[in-house]
Amino acid sequence: MEYKAPLRDMRFVLHELFDVAGHCELLGNGLDRELIDGVLEEAAKYAGEVVAPLNRNGDEEGCTLENGEVTTPKGFKEAYQQYVDNGWASMAGPIDFGGQGFPQLVAAQFQEMLMGANLAFRVYSGLTDGAVLALYKHGSEELKNAYLAKMVSGSWSGTMCLTEPQAGTDLALLRTKAEPQADGSYKVTGNKIFISGGEHDMSENIVHLVLARLPDAPAGVKGISLLLVPKLLPDANGNPGARNALSCGAIEHKMGIKGASTCVMNFDGATGWLIGGPNQGLACMFTMMNDARFQVGLQGLGIAEQAFQGALSYARERLQSRALTGPANPEKAADPIIVHPDVRRMLLTQKTLVEGARMLGAYCAVQLDLEHGHPDEAARKAAAKRAALLIPIVKSFFTDLGQEVASLGVQCYGGHGFIREWGMEQLMRDSRITQLYEGTNGIQALDLIRRKLMGDGGAEMAALQAELLAQSEALAGRAELAGLVEPIRARLNEWRELTAQVLAAAARDPQEIGAVSVDYLQYSSYVLIAAFWLQAAAKAQDALDAGSGETGFYQAKLRSAEFYVKRILVRASSHREALLGGADCLMALPEADFAF
Amino acid sequence: MEYKAPLRDMRFVLHELFDVAGHCELLGNGLDRELIDGVLEEAAKYAGEVVAPLNRNGDEEGCTLENGEVTTPKGFKEAYQQYVDNGWASMAGPIDFGGQGFPQLVAAQFQEMLMGANLAFRVYSGLTDGAVLALYKHGSEELKNAYLAKMVSGSWSGTMCLTEPQAGTDLALLRTKAEPQADGSYKVTGNKIFISGGEHDMSENIVHLVLARLPDAPAGVKGISLLLVPKLLPDANGNPGARNALSCGAIEHKMGIKGASTCVMNFDGATGWLIGGPNQGLACMFTMMNDARFQVGLQGLGIAEQAFQGALSYARERLQSRALTGPANPEKAADPIIVHPDVRRMLLTQKTLVEGARMLGAYCAVQLDLEHGHPDEAARKAAAKRAALLIPIVKSFFTDLGQEVASLGVQCYGGHGFIREWGMEQLMRDSRITQLYEGTNGIQALDLIRRKLMGDGGAEMAALQAELLAQSEALAGRAELAGLVEPIRARLNEWRELTAQVLAAAARDPQEIGAVSVDYLQYSSYVLIAAFWLQAAAKAQDALDAGSGETGFYQAKLRSAEFYVKRILVRASSHREALLGGADCLMALPEADFAF
Repeated sequence: MEYKAPLRDMRFVLHELFDVAGHCELLGNGLDRELIDGVLEEAAKYAGEVVAPLNRNGDEEGCTLENGEVTTPKGFKEAYQQYVDNGWASMAGPIDFGGQGFPQLVAAQFQEMLMGANLAFRVYSGLTDGAVLALYKHGSEELKNAYLAKMVSGSWSGTMCLTEPQAGTDLALLRTKAEPQADGSYKVTGNKIFISGGEHDMSENIVHLVLARLPDAPAGVKGISLLLVPKLLPDANGNPGARNALSCGAIEHKMGIKGASTCVMNFDGATGWLIGGPNQGLACMFTMMNDARFQVGLQGLGIAEQAFQGALSYARERLQSRALTGPANPEKAADPIIVHPDVRRMLLTQKTLVEGARMLGAYCAVQLDLEHGHPDEAARKAAAKRAALLIPIVKSFFTDLGQEVASLGVQCYGGHGFIREWGMEQLMRDSRITQLYEGTNGIQALDLIRRKLMGDGGAEMAALQAELLAQSEALAGRAELAGLVEPIRARLNEWRELTAQVLAAAARDPQEIGAVSVDYLQYSSYVLIAAFWLQAAAKAQDALDAGSGETGFYQAKLRSAEFYVKRILVRASSHREALLGGADCLMALPEADFAF
Repeated sequence: MEYKAPLRDMRFVLHELFDVAGHCELLGNGLDRELIDGVLEEAAKYAGEVVAPLNRNGDEEGCTLENGEVTTPKGFKEAYQQYVDNGWASMAGPIDFGGQGFPQLVAAQFQEMLMGANLAFRVYSGLTDGAVLALYKHGSEELKNAYLAKMVSGSWSGTMCLTEPQAGTDLALLRTKAEPQADGSYKVTGNKIFISGGEHDMSENIVHLVLARLPDAPAGVKGISLLLVPKLLPDANGNPGARNALSCGAIEHKMGIKGASTCVMNFDGATGWLIGGPNQGLACMFTMMNDARFQVGLQGLGIAEQAFQGALSYARERLQSRALTGPANPEKAADPIIVHPDVRRMLLTQKTLVEGARMLGAYCAVQLDLEHGHPDEAARKAAAKRAALLIPIVKSFFTDLGQEVASLGVQCYGGHGFIREWGMEQLMRDSRITQLYEGTNGIQALDLIRRKLMGDGGAEMAALQAELLAQSEALAGRAELAGLVEPIRARLNEWRELTAQVLAAAARDPQEIGAVSVDYLQYSSYVLIAAFWLQAAAKAQDALDAGSGETGFYQAKLRSAEFYVKRILVRASSHREALLGGADCLMALPEADFAF
């Protein structure tokens, strides 16, 4: 399947919705519109011409483990070398360690391209980005000097080693141990599972960030420390030297992302060094958690874009049956299936979810940039709160929609959607992991309610809702948008009321937290994205009013916004009714009576 | 993954809801409750102990094609031989050709077991059942005598050869030719794709039912004929003889049901015989279409049951985190995840969709039985109309829920859900085909509106709705059911109004047919199943009132009905709002403007 980066829509989001040039000026990074557009055009070529063509074969070939060495699918190594050599790896890396310091708002567009083109390939570098962030924020100067430049350039890659067989969601159950040595290092011993990129042949060295317990650590999550444990110990010149006491014991056989090695990692007294203080591991991980979860959200979006492209292209070409109103294509034996309302329903669902998510993702990226780079501390804190509120929504909703949009893609292809060579079923299989890793989507929803909403009594959510309401009210006078403003404003008000009900229920009964969480997250996502569709429609109308020559593009934004309101936003109704159903109907059935 | 047939629930459906003994008496087949229960217990053993253990390996090993011969996965052939030898193949077959004449109401329970235990294995025999039906109804005496007994016993298997590369949904585009020969036979020439069980090593012979055109046939679907084309031509004694001029050119590489061979079949002047008259092929296919679509619906149900069993078992065993109300299992390091409301939400969604679908499926099976076997012709016709109305709902809704329930199963397993050895991801991959074959679910929805609803101006649907309303009103006085009766009655009334709106919109604008179809089918399904949950709750309350010792089972029915109404039935709201969004928002966007 061909992947063509949606550059026009990305430029709409970057320039017309979020004024990326002004954003860069505020951040003081010296980037301008021309440079950004140029970089994204080159990025589109790399993603479309180098990375995407490896996706189908990567799925068929998968990874192999022999004598402790993992071989990645044909072509991955060479494409990764280009990723390093041409500076793609360092795009968003910190400038003081050789990075180019692009803001997340721009980097997210490139990352989405990689994920759409070949998710398995992106998995390796995505975890390096996360490891860089944790090391940059919490590592000692010595560790940073020894590792960061090589990780930023991509010549060394990174992993996150959290999960153990008995400890997935619940990190309190971690058993891996780190014993202090006389030289200030630690000996790390334990078994980790589900380690993406734990072993592979693409980079010169692999730097594992490992959660473990020091000997005197308190029980539970307060006794977890973070250690840096390299595959190859740097020699006196800082080059990869002696092999450390760690190995890949097995690679998993998975539903999808088969080109990504998912490893069982055994640490047998491996040498490592503490990142952050003793027992500060979870706090250090939380630093990179926002970034990592944002990235997983982008994975859902990237795959969804690719599924939409495939379905649209198939629907334009496949001739089958006649339009309900009579032959649209009388000179041919049948009409292209895009004439059918139900096929259009599927395509427009894909399109409006994808474009809607791209806007919300960019808004979230802006907050992450401001959190890290706004010159004013209060503004940094404000952005951090906003980002923290949005992250569980982005991670969960984008990955759910990735699966839905991929499945719609399969449906558009009919029987061919089930056949591997067409590539569409792979997108369903690849995207399914995104709803599970970095915290399952159920965990994201709990995080939204428990930490983000209840954490401040709903204050940040109320602030967001008030801003969106004010924006919608500012558009109330515009006749061309009347069909959008009213239903969206009504939903924003309903969302405020519902949020108050959710907070009251959660305060009354802790079971309600888990009983409302997923439906509340879904409800919030649909309404939030509607607010961005309203903004997009306003910008499109502005452009048309100003006499833009791109009437097709802007008219499509208006039509898409209308579709979203009439056909997608309405899903909020059922989520609202479901969560108002309360906890009792979930808890009443005794465990023993679930089956007979 | 272990498969344990849900015998208790099947007995509830058979005896308590649908009085299978009375049903059998009406049909005059001489079966009684004891015999039926005994057969289903043996069936459960065969499904659970013989067929289910082959499922995981069947997926890994798949089928292989060498020199035109297809080898099925290890164990399939032996399990199939038991299926033949022990009379499972002939359970529902016609008595005059060696079948046992079990009604569909009973056979459906066995078929659900097979599908849950191993869908790929069931695909082979499922198509034989369909071919038997078509041949029995439309074949000449000569053909029936030569083929039926062997197909009913299962020693010869059957296929349906419809699809060609250019003709999937749209059979008008068929090109395969059948040329009459002097001896009354035909030479069949053409290429068919997606032929399940087109070639394999499990049966002595394979009997293909092939759609083709006679030389003088009119264009389009009116010019299609049905031919019987055996792999091996019967010799003078009726045994498999000379090889016919047909071959398997390739087998597809698929997302799932890898143990089922999906073949490209090449007919190169193969000898065949007409079933039914010339150009009557589509009418003959329609005979078996109801049955085939019902069977595909059961596939969704069977897989869903298996996914529920797996998820429930995992949720009871997996220890992770603590209950929101504090440790439920303080002596262990963590609580089983079934304590979490969101995990229960997933499990109860699975449970109530599965049990709800089982009731609706049984109701549909009753109609199919009455259509074929009621002593009174008017009653046969009435049942045929009812079955025809229900079939697209059963096919489409059950397969959608199969995919949803399997995906919820993966979600309950967390990261392990993505790993092949756990078996849950296979259920997602296997069930995905059911939404596509035998007419995609979009086509089912069009069938519901165009043929079934508009075909009689909504009369049959109105009759069904009136019956369900009357049943709900009869329960209005029962205080214990008050929480169910009111919301369900309100939905039944809303459904009537919505149906009138849909009919009016479709009459006004043909695009509305396709614009409302999927959401109307979904809406109708949720409400229809709610009506059966109300019946189930009433029966459960009856049993409790009568002092049944099985309080857990019956209380679970009441709790499940309550969950369904509060958490699942509410989905109808969004489908209603979506379809009322109309066709304009689907058709307004010019095809050229879907992407830029």
